[in-house]
Amino acid sequence: MDIRVGNLKKPIDVSEYLFRRLHQVGVRSVHGLPGDYNLVALDYVPKAGLKWVGNCNELNAAYAADGYARVNGIAAIVTTFGVGELSAINGLAGAFSEMVPVVHIVGTPSTASQRDGMLLHHTLGNGDFNVFANMSAPISCVVAKLADPAEIPGQIDHALQQCWRQSRPVYITLPTDMATQKVEGQLLDTPIDLSDPENKDKEGEDYVVDVVLKYLHAATSPVVLVDACAVRHRVLEEVHSLLKKTKLPTFVTPMGKSAVNEDHEFFGGVYSGDASAPSVRKMVEESDLVLSIGSLQSDFNTAGFSFRLSQLKTIELHSDHCKVRYSEYPGVRMKGVLRKLIDKVDVGRLKVNKVPPPSSSSSQASKDASAKDDIIRQDFFWPRIGQFLQKDDIVVTETGTANFGIWDTRFPAGVTALNQTLWGSIGWAVGACQGAALGTKDAGTHRRTVLFEGDGSLQLTAQEISTMIRHELDVIIFLIVNDGYTIERHIHGMDAEYNDVVAWKYQDLVDVFTPASSSSSSSKTPTKSPRKYQVRTVTELEKLLTQDGDFAAGGGLRFVELYMPREDAPASLKLTAEASAKRNAE
Amino acid sequence: MDIRVGNLKKPIDVSEYLFRRLHQVGVRSVHGLPGDYNLVALDYVPKAGLKWVGNCNELNAAYAADGYARVNGIAAIVTTFGVGELSAINGLAGAFSEMVPVVHIVGTPSTASQRDGMLLHHTLGNGDFNVFANMSAPISCVVAKLADPAEIPGQIDHALQQCWRQSRPVYITLPTDMATQKVEGQLLDTPIDLSDPENKDKEGEDYVVDVVLKYLHAATSPVVLVDACAVRHRVLEEVHSLLKKTKLPTFVTPMGKSAVNEDHEFFGGVYSGDASAPSVRKMVEESDLVLSIGSLQSDFNTAGFSFRLSQLKTIELHSDHCKVRYSEYPGVRMKGVLRKLIDKVDVGRLKVNKVPPPSSSSSQASKDASAKDDIIRQDFFWPRIGQFLQKDDIVVTETGTANFGIWDTRFPAGVTALNQTLWGSIGWAVGACQGAALGTKDAGTHRRTVLFEGDGSLQLTAQEISTMIRHELDVIIFLIVNDGYTIERHIHGMDAEYNDVVAWKYQDLVDVFTPASSSSSSSKTPTKSPRKYQVRTVTELEKLLTQDGDFAAGGGLRFVELYMPREDAPASLKLTAEASAKRNAE
Repeated sequence: MDIRVGNLKKPIDVSEYLFRRLHQVGVRSVHGLPGDYNLVALDYVPKAGLKWVGNCNELNAAYAADGYARVNGIAAIVTTFGVGELSAINGLAGAFSEMVPVVHIVGTPSTASQRDGMLLHHTLGNGDFNVFANMSAPISCVVAKLADPAEIPGQIDHALQQCWRQSRPVYITLPTDMATQKVEGQLLDTPIDLSDPENKDKEGEDYVVDVVLKYLHAATSPVVLVDACAVRHRVLEEVHSLLKKTKLPTFVTPMGKSAVNEDHEFFGGVYSGDASAPSVRKMVEESDLVLSIGSLQSDFNTAGFSFRLSQLKTIELHSDHCKVRYSEYPGVRMKGVLRKLIDKVDVGRLKVNKVPPPSSSSSQASKDASAKDDIIRQDFFWPRIGQFLQKDDIVVTETGTANFGIWDTRFPAGVTALNQTLWGSIGWAVGACQGAALGTKDAGTHRRTVLFEGDGSLQLTAQEISTMIRHELDVIIFLIVNDGYTIERHIHGMDAEYNDVVAWKYQDLVDVFTPASSSSSSSKTPTKSPRKYQVRTVTELEKLLTQDGDFAAGGGLRFVELYMPREDAPASLKLTAEASAKRNAE
Repeated sequence: MDIRVGNLKKPIDVSEYLFRRLHQVGVRSVHGLPGDYNLVALDYVPKAGLKWVGNCNELNAAYAADGYARVNGIAAIVTTFGVGELSAINGLAGAFSEMVPVVHIVGTPSTASQRDGMLLHHTLGNGDFNVFANMSAPISCVVAKLADPAEIPGQIDHALQQCWRQSRPVYITLPTDMATQKVEGQLLDTPIDLSDPENKDKEGEDYVVDVVLKYLHAATSPVVLVDACAVRHRVLEEVHSLLKKTKLPTFVTPMGKSAVNEDHEFFGGVYSGDASAPSVRKMVEESDLVLSIGSLQSDFNTAGFSFRLSQLKTIELHSDHCKVRYSEYPGVRMKGVLRKLIDKVDVGRLKVNKVPPPSSSSSQASKDASAKDDIIRQDFFWPRIGQFLQKDDIVVTETGTANFGIWDTRFPAGVTALNQTLWGSIGWAVGACQGAALGTKDAGTHRRTVLFEGDGSLQLTAQEISTMIRHELDVIIFLIVNDGYTIERHIHGMDAEYNDVVAWKYQDLVDVFTPASSSSSSSKTPTKSPRKYQVRTVTELEKLLTQDGDFAAGGGLRFVELYMPREDAPASLKLTAEASAKRNAE
């Protein structure tokens, strides 16, 4: 035994230290694939009380980790050097873009092999063992290369802390020889401090609070607008307290959808500029004070930059700064400001107006048409599905018609909506759905996870349905079969061949991925039998949604092949696509 | 019309220029996926006489482009900014590592949007539009960002030339507004110079040739060893001429397999160090002069660095230098040296020994066992399949048991073998098979493409079988069903859960991916009906291989689910895995 190890009070292997830390911060399942540079480390997953997911490929695993983190707070993925990590990198870039905390652990060749520049598989053949870490650096808030046991616990603790606090991916390399080195296990007795840092400049914070209150108390038609960063930077508790106390009319952006319980009497609907319902648009755009919380005004979140909010009438609270009209307050974080606002707001002085009654932006004519000819149209479907959704459902929507259509769905209380509106990588939602469903299973909450997916998108990541079956997750999938990339058709090339996909027999995938009960394989037959459905008319859809109790109960996989017309799209998508096409040509 | 355009003699749109150049260098099909930043460019694909492939996802598209280039010389893939390109990046890193020329074209936001730092979808939300190009730079031999029409034709021509000459990927960004800018079309009348650069220092070249000849003429037991770089740097014509003239005993490494016609009387077999057949090993390692052409001694190409070749008895010819014993000649390229060797070698002075009779390294005992109990074992299968292969087949093997097993398969003449032994990304072979099969179809040669795939690997990229069906490619797939990641089991964790995969009903994928004839979809029903087979015993295998003429004819997709024992692996894999496990622990 070397002297250093002899000095350790509770020696523990590096891999075990890492996985125990992951368990402490809330991870219960580890996504990823095995590869020879991570195999030894994977032996420690069950030892730390964690479950191995075993995804079909690394990109899907990264998407799944993203979905898991959105439901459970944080997630982890393990890949192997070069081939595995690069396969996953788009999923992690998405987590960076969308601010989702995912710990990416990469098993690498041993420190000795790296030092000697050996010509190993999974290398570029040029002796450069840093190249892949460099590629991941711009999409990671911390890069931690584990190479010296004396440093490793500190590196791991720092990475996990920053992952949580910055709500972004971190990248950790674990060389094969380091996986089994001894480090001080006693450090595990002290949890990593995950508390959100407070505003250090209390005077600055108080100043902002006073300014905000001044405008808020003076406003005649104030509204609150909640957006993505309120979710990602974890101020929903504060938002809810503020709204409960003030009852101010509240709207959400598309990316902020589900941040506020939609059955509250002060919830007014989705504001998305030109794509909003007219009554929503009127109330928000004519308000003399918009309190904007966690705003992220990307093209797809604003229906093509169509927000009409005057800066003079806007107060913006952000994760790392605030802005009141044109005055900026860098470094003043919204969390502290919100807490003080809750304390100090004088409810008696607020003008609290009534929100408009629930309405959708989709055309009534189109809804009537569906009732008449029995064809399932987007304008009919999305408002309708809101009545099928249940309290506390997790709703995952894919980039495409689903991501826009869902703006028109009124959620029951407690719904968590997952979408990737900024990064917008098609195929993400299938993986994210697996991760989200496993997240609620791990949390013991057993919520239904309902996925709305497109046929074009499904083809990128279809195999991860197999992982849902493997882990007996409670998932309802509505696959919108409309013959290709409809969102692209509306941007350019309505009839172009490149927007077509092969018409798979989608529902039969369920059978392919369900192991036969007589199989001699090591994979168990799931006890929750997956079921499949095909729905081509409004009548068939109504029957499924209202009369099939087993379907709605969602025990195991329920896969619905749902046919919609090829060129049909939500109005919000058409508006946004038009703006995109125009900008592309400029 | 602006003045600059008025000065153009034959104005042509940038996208058309790019795709016409691709056609000129030999591309006939363009792989990739549509995305809103590349849609307008894709309109030009058919105008330039090219076919759009339409893959299921970008990683698969990159693998397919890799396979296409290995058969057709060069390939192209189009992706969209951020999400698409990063999904493909592992496939392109593989092409870089393995020296395969692939042109990667990325549709990006318009130059105006980039300049204004707009908060667009598919960005990290931080206004950085260079980040993805920077990530691709280390795996590209040229990065060309098209932004000024005056520069664009030169940038495109340079990128394509270097792609070909360096035999590595290039990365080209095409902003949406540049796609339709006018450039000088008259430049297309002058083809891009793709000729391999000659050695400038003729004296140096002559010197090396003289030294090589001196040793070659003096040797008593010279052998030739052909490796990967001879294939990738296109000296096979020279190698064949040299061998035809000299009839020197010739061996190939695993990555060099198929570089030499295996029915030549001077072909001795596969040399792979400790994993070689004993007679091969004896002849190579006891030779007093090994003429090594295009050597690439990676771990998996050398059965775990087990080559026993004395530097004192070795002459190495490389793409950019030569080495005779310990003397190095930087900058002297093998192509010129080989050409002069062919001219100058004095056949009368050569000692040409007889090669050992064909034999395999696999154990006779294991082969006998298969005959007895009817179980298909690796040791039985790989030598056997050589008799099923036909002249000019394209043989694709996946990383795993297939990539090692194929060492024991004696090929008919004209076979082209594809493997990814250095990069070793599982799942690659499915995509590469699609690309290879399309490559031979485009070339009008209509060779059979035969894929040997593992069940674990298939799960990463299975959907690309759909693309094979879409394009009616002539592919025979042998799917080795052995219950998980067998290569990983032999490295570590023989019974570990993380090496298990879900037992899919693999052959039913064929039905899922075949559009119904009554489908209203835009995708045509293939006229070549895909067929599926299940083979669990030697008897069933023999019947399929010898008595089913339709199967062997390979018109369309033929998919065989082939069962082998879970822990069974070629001896070469076991040796290599053992070496890997040992090095990982060091």
